[in-house]
Amino acid sequence: MDGNAGPVYRPAMNPAAPAVVDFWFDFSSPYSYIANEWVDALVARHGRTVHRHAILLGATFQAAELRSPVSYPMKREYSIADFARSARFEGLPYRHPENFPIPTQNAARIFWWLHDTDSPAAAAGWSRAALRAYFTRGVALNDAVALKALAGASGLDADAAEAAWNDATWKQRLKAENDAAIAAGIFGAPSFMVDGELFWGNDRKPQIERWLASGPF
Amino acid sequence: MDGNAGPVYRPAMNPAAPAVVDFWFDFSSPYSYIANEWVDALVARHGRTVHRHAILLGATFQAAELRSPVSYPMKREYSIADFARSARFEGLPYRHPENFPIPTQNAARIFWWLHDTDSPAAAAGWSRAALRAYFTRGVALNDAVALKALAGASGLDADAAEAAWNDATWKQRLKAENDAAIAAGIFGAPSFMVDGELFWGNDRKPQIERWLASGPF
Repeated sequence: MDGNAGPVYRPAMNPAAPAVVDFWFDFSSPYSYIANEWVDALVARHGRTVHRHAILLGATFQAAELRSPVSYPMKREYSIADFARSARFEGLPYRHPENFPIPTQNAARIFWWLHDTDSPAAAAGWSRAALRAYFTRGVALNDAVALKALAGASGLDADAAEAAWNDATWKQRLKAENDAAIAAGIFGAPSFMVDGELFWGNDRKPQIERWLASGPF
Repeated sequence: MDGNAGPVYRPAMNPAAPAVVDFWFDFSSPYSYIANEWVDALVARHGRTVHRHAILLGATFQAAELRSPVSYPMKREYSIADFARSARFEGLPYRHPENFPIPTQNAARIFWWLHDTDSPAAAAGWSRAALRAYFTRGVALNDAVALKALAGASGLDADAAEAAWNDATWKQRLKAENDAAIAAGIFGAPSFMVDGELFWGNDRKPQIERWLASGPF
């Protein structure tokens, strides 16, 4: 009955279906933004599909006793430069947001609302729209007015989106995903689970690709 | 006159000579062991040479207020698995040492003694011998008897090596390198400086390779 009593994550094990690649991300994570742009094409090349999980790094950091790299003075300057360089390495635009990091529970609740009431594809579309808005145009996902406007501009019903992020159903849905991620050993984002193997970080892309191409190594 | 008053690092700027790639490592860092195996061939493909710097992560962690990833309970299990997987990804043997991490000042002082009294190539050879010994055979580099035996087995004068790690000259040489690394913004290992651009981590290999192949991106 404590905060960690959420559902335990278990990878899909149906041998008849193409195995999914689970992908955990946070809307305030630059490396999640980058990975969110390449993950679909990479796994599609190997006959897989992506199962996205919006989570809150604040929850996993607390569970794992970690802090954001930008909270360490010497690491901060390097990290901000590396965010932009890692985006350029993937051919992606990046503009470091003036206000960073930010709380992203409302954006994440919209994700789960779309995921459960429309489709995983609709939620994936929202993940791209919101991450691009924050990391290329500085749209403040933590600001209710800006977030509602972004939802509307992204083709969602803006009033329904606002109602969703205030709804206990989607608050609880997000909390359960955070708890499940922590129970699965997730301590940062982006994280990936491929056939039970955990990979942490945008920079594990080459290892994930080899794993998908030729199996465990 | 304080602990940070060491020489300030400046990259080589002689346009007539092939620019070096500076490489900082710690003898107790698994990702340093891995990078130490690929760095020479990678930079040689692009007409460069490596300038190795043995440092102590304990010093940079203290300056940057950081801790080893294995000191965080949730990150520990993943990190130990990732050390071995990242070695396999490079085709390298790896056996996680029972005693990890360990203090490595004596191994690092041997490095600087060889570097300054013999040659950078001799010091590079020692870096390979000692990192392989610790990360594939569990040789305790922090144990004076084991370290002296390793020095002898590696073709060094074992008595001279022991004298070197107890000599104030090489203690001070290592301290100056730690201070210079911190002054250059180094907060972890392995780290690389390419034409003034800092890269941190074994997993920045693809970015370093692109930088060397086609310049800044």
